[in-house]
Amino acid sequence: MAPTLRRLKIAVSGLGRMGARHAQHFLHRTPKAELVAAFTPADSELVWAKENLEPWGVKIYSDYDEMLKHEGLEAVCVAVVTTAHAEQSIKAIEAGLHVLCEKPLSTKLDVCQQLLDVAASHPKQKVMCGFSRRFDASYLSAYAQTVNGSIGRPTILRSQTCDKYDPSGFFVEYAQFSGGIFVDCNIHDVDLALWFFSAESKILPKVKSVIAFGVTAVEPDLAKHGDVDNGVGVVEFYDGQIAYFYSSRMNPPGQHDTTEIIGTKGKLSVNANPTTGLLESHLSTGIHRDIPQNYYERFEHAFVEEARQFTDAVLENKEVPVDLTSSMEAVKIGVALQDSLKSGRKIAFGRDGKRVDEDGQAKARL
Amino acid sequence: MAPTLRRLKIAVSGLGRMGARHAQHFLHRTPKAELVAAFTPADSELVWAKENLEPWGVKIYSDYDEMLKHEGLEAVCVAVVTTAHAEQSIKAIEAGLHVLCEKPLSTKLDVCQQLLDVAASHPKQKVMCGFSRRFDASYLSAYAQTVNGSIGRPTILRSQTCDKYDPSGFFVEYAQFSGGIFVDCNIHDVDLALWFFSAESKILPKVKSVIAFGVTAVEPDLAKHGDVDNGVGVVEFYDGQIAYFYSSRMNPPGQHDTTEIIGTKGKLSVNANPTTGLLESHLSTGIHRDIPQNYYERFEHAFVEEARQFTDAVLENKEVPVDLTSSMEAVKIGVALQDSLKSGRKIAFGRDGKRVDEDGQAKARL
Amino acid sequence: MAPTLRRLKIAVSGLGRMGARHAQHFLHRTPKAELVAAFTPADSELVWAKENLEPWGVKIYSDYDEMLKHEGLEAVCVAVVTTAHAEQSIKAIEAGLHVLCEKPLSTKLDVCQQLLDVAASHPKQKVMCGFSRRFDASYLSAYAQTVNGSIGRPTILRSQTCDKYDPSGFFVEYAQFSGGIFVDCNIHDVDLALWFFSAESKILPKVKSVIAFGVTAVEPDLAKHGDVDNGVGVVEFYDGQIAYFYSSRMNPPGQHDTTEIIGTKGKLSVNANPTTGLLESHLSTGIHRDIPQNYYERFEHAFVEEARQFTDAVLENKEVPVDLTSSMEAVKIGVALQDSLKSGRKIAFGRDGKRVDEDGQAKARL
Amino acid sequence: MAPTLRRLKIAVSGLGRMGARHAQHFLHRTPKAELVAAFTPADSELVWAKENLEPWGVKIYSDYDEMLKHEGLEAVCVAVVTTAHAEQSIKAIEAGLHVLCEKPLSTKLDVCQQLLDVAASHPKQKVMCGFSRRFDASYLSAYAQTVNGSIGRPTILRSQTCDKYDPSGFFVEYAQFSGGIFVDCNIHDVDLALWFFSAESKILPKVKSVIAFGVTAVEPDLAKHGDVDNGVGVVEFYDGQIAYFYSSRMNPPGQHDTTEIIGTKGKLSVNANPTTGLLESHLSTGIHRDIPQNYYERFEHAFVEEARQFTDAVLENKEVPVDLTSSMEAVKIGVALQDSLKSGRKIAFGRDGKRVDEDGQAKARL
Repeated sequence: MAPTLRRLKIAVSGLGRMGARHAQHFLHRTPKAELVAAFTPADSELVWAKENLEPWGVKIYSDYDEMLKHEGLEAVCVAVVTTAHAEQSIKAIEAGLHVLCEKPLSTKLDVCQQLLDVAASHPKQKVMCGFSRRFDASYLSAYAQTVNGSIGRPTILRSQTCDKYDPSGFFVEYAQFSGGIFVDCNIHDVDLALWFFSAESKILPKVKSVIAFGVTAVEPDLAKHGDVDNGVGVVEFYDGQIAYFYSSRMNPPGQHDTTEIIGTKGKLSVNANPTTGLLESHLSTGIHRDIPQNYYERFEHAFVEEARQFTDAVLENKEVPVDLTSSMEAVKIGVALQDSLKSGRKIAFGRDGKRVDEDGQAKARL
Repeated sequence: MAPTLRRLKIAVSGLGRMGARHAQHFLHRTPKAELVAAFTPADSELVWAKENLEPWGVKIYSDYDEMLKHEGLEAVCVAVVTTAHAEQSIKAIEAGLHVLCEKPLSTKLDVCQQLLDVAASHPKQKVMCGFSRRFDASYLSAYAQTVNGSIGRPTILRSQTCDKYDPSGFFVEYAQFSGGIFVDCNIHDVDLALWFFSAESKILPKVKSVIAFGVTAVEPDLAKHGDVDNGVGVVEFYDGQIAYFYSSRMNPPGQHDTTEIIGTKGKLSVNANPTTGLLESHLSTGIHRDIPQNYYERFEHAFVEEARQFTDAVLENKEVPVDLTSSMEAVKIGVALQDSLKSGRKIAFGRDGKRVDEDGQAKARL
Repeated sequence: MAPTLRRLKIAVSGLGRMGARHAQHFLHRTPKAELVAAFTPADSELVWAKENLEPWGVKIYSDYDEMLKHEGLEAVCVAVVTTAHAEQSIKAIEAGLHVLCEKPLSTKLDVCQQLLDVAASHPKQKVMCGFSRRFDASYLSAYAQTVNGSIGRPTILRSQTCDKYDPSGFFVEYAQFSGGIFVDCNIHDVDLALWFFSAESKILPKVKSVIAFGVTAVEPDLAKHGDVDNGVGVVEFYDGQIAYFYSSRMNPPGQHDTTEIIGTKGKLSVNANPTTGLLESHLSTGIHRDIPQNYYERFEHAFVEEARQFTDAVLENKEVPVDLTSSMEAVKIGVALQDSLKSGRKIAFGRDGKRVDEDGQAKARL
Repeated sequence: MAPTLRRLKIAVSGLGRMGARHAQHFLHRTPKAELVAAFTPADSELVWAKENLEPWGVKIYSDYDEMLKHEGLEAVCVAVVTTAHAEQSIKAIEAGLHVLCEKPLSTKLDVCQQLLDVAASHPKQKVMCGFSRRFDASYLSAYAQTVNGSIGRPTILRSQTCDKYDPSGFFVEYAQFSGGIFVDCNIHDVDLALWFFSAESKILPKVKSVIAFGVTAVEPDLAKHGDVDNGVGVVEFYDGQIAYFYSSRMNPPGQHDTTEIIGTKGKLSVNANPTTGLLESHLSTGIHRDIPQNYYERFEHAFVEEARQFTDAVLENKEVPVDLTSSMEAVKIGVALQDSLKSGRKIAFGRDGKRVDEDGQAKARL
């Protein structure tokens, strides 16, 4: 018997590392979704798709626009290169589809704004940026405790994104498209600050200033793209809240994200003790444990939960769990951190959210 | 488009707590399996099934024998009350089906033997007892390290199964069917001993003696079923290996299993630091963390992996990962522990695997 | 100016590994004690004493009886080989001195009894067996929580003593004097059981039966002394309490003691996560930490506290913190475990504390 | 017999919280030192001294200058209020004594410079600032690993000092003398950065810029002293090293310092898992552990080790383990952080170590 239930017909665009995973999640791990189509412009990904998606009845497209016309398609998960996130999302929205877009929306603020404008003019469609940490069980539990007041008012947030060192030099090339370490890595941490600092009021905190520092400790070639392999940033908000961040491309044992949400009555600490599981080895060299090797090992279940919650939001016409304005704000802050890294200057924002020069003049940017 | 892939058509028998979960796992989380049918004799479970399974095309039966005739059915997952495990498994095997049976196979050794005999006479069908811990990522990683020799020869194994205290008294009533704490709880730990002590040789270790102790600390009424709420047991094997166990029904914070595999060159420690995730709360009362509330919270992913591996074994005609002889041996040891608990005596086994009286005479039992 | 305070004049007998440490503790780390004398029969220790004690005004003796006559001497810390513990303690008591005796009092019960008799006939003198764990901050904190009822009634106690593997074979030779692994290592764990199980009532729990198992996994030569390098023992008490123990001579990373005190309302876990300090190294091979290399690294501060509390008890004429009857009971249980290891039999005790044969007859032993 | 050994005759100045502890450490826990005198201007402290020091032969002074003339006095430990640190140290040096001065040397750079000048003109006397963390076993072990190259080049250092919230408002009054949170609390973290970043070369890293942020989350009255209860600071060094700091006066469970030294090949993490000991409680509300309640509970052993190492350095005429130039550099950075906190501006330093205006002009300060 075929299911009699209504399931969300969704397509995935881009079958690179994350795209392929999203496709698998919608195909096999999101009961209420039905992966009906996938797009990839890359031959190698096409081979993978024919082997892993087509046998399950997924139609494979090498033309994104064609895919948007797939019969009955209701939603698209955009997981292509960052530079095409916004463009593809906009097309999908204009084609009447719901959109789950990988982070960041864009590395450019004006492009983000276009996407938000289009989304705003299609209010019945769900558009969400996929900040996966918001779907991680530990972060969700921390958020629930924050909302219920157990740590008082969230005041300081420390958050880091450290990736295992990849000696292939991949991320040097990648740096020219990624928007830089603050936009690519710490954007997650920025998003967490926005999320936790609005936990009680549900109103986005207003950024007051940002400053960033960085070094190229293991990949000097990053400098040619104005990027670093270790970054430290501080973001100050109006109304007495501070977030500070660290990101690294050279963590030897693997991936290590940590976040502390520090309130007036307590602190919530996520992943201070990284581990892959519950195993420790007691050997003649001491006690050892492993940690996740990459972001996906750490957040696999969060990505699955993200797919599930997006699907539910569409099917049940609920608000998506990650607000689009907040996702654009994260880009704004990330870009400012990256700019500060380059200039060495603190960047200030007015209460209206606009960047101001250091002499107090509003600065034309975007 | 419908999938063109071959998927295993499976049914679940029993939709109680674990049965319902198995059904969901095969339905939504085992891509290569297709849940086509389910059986339950209970009205309340029927309601749940109509709401949660039927809409997905699963046919619901209230007669087990009828279900076995479901067209195209290839396998059954038996998850009814323990006392019916073996009987239903035997029927399914005789109907030409593969079987995944919840642990323990039975609380009686002669019944286990019947099941093994039937299975042996249907060598093309897969029959596996679901010892879920063998599919937990941390245990699997410990096993891989044991196999590759990193701890030398496994010599001592300590393992415990401690459940959150349930003040409802449920497990007092349950005790009359469960076979007792060693058969019901520590059977997992016994299974782990058999698994790890045969990691290198792939030959089951031979039990030499067992002894058990127990108390009723929080539920004196357990005594009327000859059971306890805290048990300690030791199992000695020929060839210099010892396993010792603890089980408890009164662990206040939740479920806590722990296993240490101690070899001549190192020790592997699973779950010495129980936790639900990666969150700790720093409050005025100290630092706090939660632990899983029950066995399923702790082993959810292991159960899903069990379903997946069983499905693969059938589809690809591979050996099932849990050997049936070993599963019966676990029952033998569990029953002996329970007998020792009652008699207060150490129970010995000959090298032929048979129980002997303390005066050295083979004891007629079974 | 010289101090005007009264300080306890103490001597240390035996300057082997622990004796030398005791001497240092009384000399430099016990403000209210004054190490005035030390005895050693060994030339090598004499050299050490002349360099490390004599310059501080400590008189060195090579005749124990002479030392007992040292002018003004008030107390002796006996830290010679186990076989001389009781004899020296008795002499010191008879000479009118207070005694702190290293554990165990003896490996023979009748010798313990003599010591207790002599002590009883000198009621004004303090006599204490040095069970160092009772002075460890973590154990003390666990005890305080047990006394205040936070875990309900202590019901199960698990405790282990695992030493770093010493490839020199030292402990094979040592085995002929040590009394065996249960008397030498697990005596600490037995003492903890007696301590925690009497935390509320201050009445020693009555042992009902013991059984022990063991293997020689790394030092087969231990068998010639009837000893093992890995032991598992269970001790059952009247009134529903069970303690179970593990000891090992082959722990690769170092020393690892652990104790769990499991009550009807909670569990206290001491040293489930062994570590030398607060440092972890995150390297390409994973996360690593070290553990103490030996018993002294783990319990250094406990030994200092033991010296301090013994000194205070004498100076202020308070009860010593470790009761002598309990220390003898620990030997009784340790010896019974060792006997059970040899015979393979469970050993029972009557409510009168006497060992009984398995046929129920009181057994003449001691 | 009196000791024949030479011991360092030392006095302690100031018997407030830390002074009293220093006195006890030199009196009872530093075998090679002899506390001969103590100074206090406070009556309440005098009472304590008469009870706790005088009976041990310590002469108590209520006039600092008199004490400096105590016969045979060789060294002074200065532990009075911060504002008198430098003045008393200078007097002692000029009196021909060795000096161990509590941190910070001063809250004013010119005063520090005077002290360094006086010390330089008395090269045979030892002068050391007591940065206690440098004597903590975990930090020492981290330092040894850094020196031996196991983490590659130290590149990023994160360090925090968080104190238990004291609702008495004490630290509001204290703020007017303390120099502010960065000079009072984070000075330890700054010192660690200087220590670890010079671990290989033994050359102090050159500060390039600092910036600080802060909020008054629980004590708004701090604002009247220009201070905050939560501070975040970043210090950038020439040659590609960054340190970032956090300090808090509102940590609910107790004291929590943490430091991560991040190198090109590994990370050393000190106190990521704060705990008072090795005890965890498993209760119905979850798993709990305590942390030290204050700085002294955390660093007691480090303070004792500091006393011991200072004493050894004097007696054996070795270099003191904490370099005076570095201790002044820590003040320079701390003061700059505090200034940045007030101005909201990033403060730059030239390669000559001098502060420069933001327009690039050397700034006259001090």
